[in-house]
Amino acid sequence: MSHRPPDPKLLSINTATVRKRWNLGEIFEGCARHGIQGVSPWRDQVQTFGLTESAKMVRDLGFVVTGYCRGGMFPGSTPEEIVAARDDNRRAVDEACELGATCLVLVVGGLPKGSKDILGARAQVRDGIGELLDYARPRNMPLAIEPLHPMYAADRACVNTTAHANDLCDELGDDGLGIALDVYHVWWDPYIHREINRAGKKRILAFHICDWLVPTRDLLLDRGMMGDGVIDIPSLRAAVEGQGYEGFHEVEIFSGQDWWERPPDEVLKTCIERHQSCC
Amino acid sequence: MSHRPPDPKLLSINTATVRKRWNLGEIFEGCARHGIQGVSPWRDQVQTFGLTESAKMVRDLGFVVTGYCRGGMFPGSTPEEIVAARDDNRRAVDEACELGATCLVLVVGGLPKGSKDILGARAQVRDGIGELLDYARPRNMPLAIEPLHPMYAADRACVNTTAHANDLCDELGDDGLGIALDVYHVWWDPYIHREINRAGKKRILAFHICDWLVPTRDLLLDRGMMGDGVIDIPSLRAAVEGQGYEGFHEVEIFSGQDWWERPPDEVLKTCIERHQSCC
Repeated sequence: MSHRPPDPKLLSINTATVRKRWNLGEIFEGCARHGIQGVSPWRDQVQTFGLTESAKMVRDLGFVVTGYCRGGMFPGSTPEEIVAARDDNRRAVDEACELGATCLVLVVGGLPKGSKDILGARAQVRDGIGELLDYARPRNMPLAIEPLHPMYAADRACVNTTAHANDLCDELGDDGLGIALDVYHVWWDPYIHREINRAGKKRILAFHICDWLVPTRDLLLDRGMMGDGVIDIPSLRAAVEGQGYEGFHEVEIFSGQDWWERPPDEVLKTCIERHQSCC
Repeated sequence: MSHRPPDPKLLSINTATVRKRWNLGEIFEGCARHGIQGVSPWRDQVQTFGLTESAKMVRDLGFVVTGYCRGGMFPGSTPEEIVAARDDNRRAVDEACELGATCLVLVVGGLPKGSKDILGARAQVRDGIGELLDYARPRNMPLAIEPLHPMYAADRACVNTTAHANDLCDELGDDGLGIALDVYHVWWDPYIHREINRAGKKRILAFHICDWLVPTRDLLLDRGMMGDGVIDIPSLRAAVEGQGYEGFHEVEIFSGQDWWERPPDEVLKTCIERHQSCC
C-alpha cells in the first residue's frame, strides 16, 4: 500500500506526551506555537493548572479538545469505593463539558484490590458505564471506552479488546457511547479490522497514535514515537477513516526514559514530522 | 466456587522453572526426589545434557513428558530463513518423539526483523504449521499451538488468543494439531471460556500454570508462583477439565529476580504446595 500522508491539521497532542517538562499552560502555548490544532489534556494537569484557566486558554487558542483523559476506574471492593468512583466520574463529565471536549475517555479500571474475579470486575464496569451514561447523555458528553492492551487487564482496564468494547456498546446503546482506539493497545489483535468495521463511524470517537517498541523495557512508560516501532499505523488509520472517521490523530506517548527527557519543542516537532511520514 | 484441589499426580514441572541453578539431569533427579511425575523439558537444556541421556533418564525415572518446548518461530525475512526454521522444526519433532513427549509445543514466532506486516507473519505461521503437520502426523507427534500473551506479538508469537489458535485448527485440521493453554497468556481474555468450549477435549493438549503479578516488572521474566498473583486458576482448570481434559498441570515460571534465585528444592516444594492450595 502506498502511503498517503494524513491531513496535517488533524494532528492532536495528548498532553501526557510532554508532561514532564511543561505544565499545561506551557503545553498549550507550545502546541499553538507549532501550529497544532488539537489537544487532549489529562485531569491532573487541568486540576493543577486550573479548570477555568485551562478552558479559557483552549478557547483563546482555538483548540479542538479531542478527548479528556480520563474517567473510568469503575470497579471497587466496597459500595463506598464504587460511589466515590461514580461521583468522581460525574465531575470528569462536568470538566469535559467545560473544556468543550469531543469525548470523555474511559479507562475502565482493573481488578479491585485483592480480587481475582475479572468477570465480576467486568460486570462492575458495565454497570458503572451504564450509570455514567445517565449523567453524560443529557449533558451531551460522549463517553469513549478505551480498550487497553491486555497487559493492563489487572491494574488499569479489564476491557482489552475492541470486540469487548463493541459488546458494551451493543449492550448499553450507542447513544453517547463509543470507542477510543489507540494503536498501541489494539495493533496485535487478529480481529481488529473486523471490529473497526463493526464499530463504524458512529462509535469511533478518537484515534490515538504512538508505536510499539521492540524490545519494550517497561510495561507502562516505554511507548515509542510513530515510526520507531512495529505498528503498521497507516493501515489502522486507513481502516478507521474507511469507516468515515474524520477526527484527529492524537499522539499519546508515555516514555519515561526517552521522549519525556527531551526538550518538548523537539518532541512536538518530531510528532509533526512523524505524523506526516509514518501515519 | 469452593476449591477442589487437583490430583497431586497431575503436577508437571516445565524445566525452565528451575533452569538457572540445575542442569537437566539435576532437574530430573530433583523432580523424582519430590515425587513429581511429569516434566516438560526445553530444547536447549536437552541439547546441553544430551538427547540420548535425557531420553534414558525420562524412561528410567518413569516420567510423563507433558510437552517438549519448543518448536515454531516460523516467520522469516528470506526463503533461506523459512527453510532453516522448517528444518529445525523437523528436528524438534524427531527429538520430541525420542523423548516420548505427548506434544511439541509451538511458539509460532513474531514479526520478521524489520517487518510491520503482522498479517503476513500470520500467513507464514499458518503455512509453516501446515508444512510441519505433514512431517509430524506420520510420526504421531501432536503439535500444540501456544497462544502467547499479546505483549509478545512482535517478538515471540503473533498468535495471541485462543480464538486465533482455534481458527488455525479449523483451517489446518484437528488431526495431530491442538492447543497448549497457559493461564498466564489467556487469563485476561473475555472470550476464554467460549474458546475453551470451542477447543474441546480433542484440541486441549497441555495446560500450563503460573500467575500474573501486580505489578509485573518485566515483560518476560517476572511470572509469579501460583497464588501470588491475580489469575483465577481454579476456574480455568475447571473449564478445561469440564471439557474432558485429563492431562497434567504444568508449572512454567520465568522469574529472573525471584524463583530462579531460590534453591530449586524449595521451588519444587512450593510448586507442590501451591498446586494443591491455589489451582
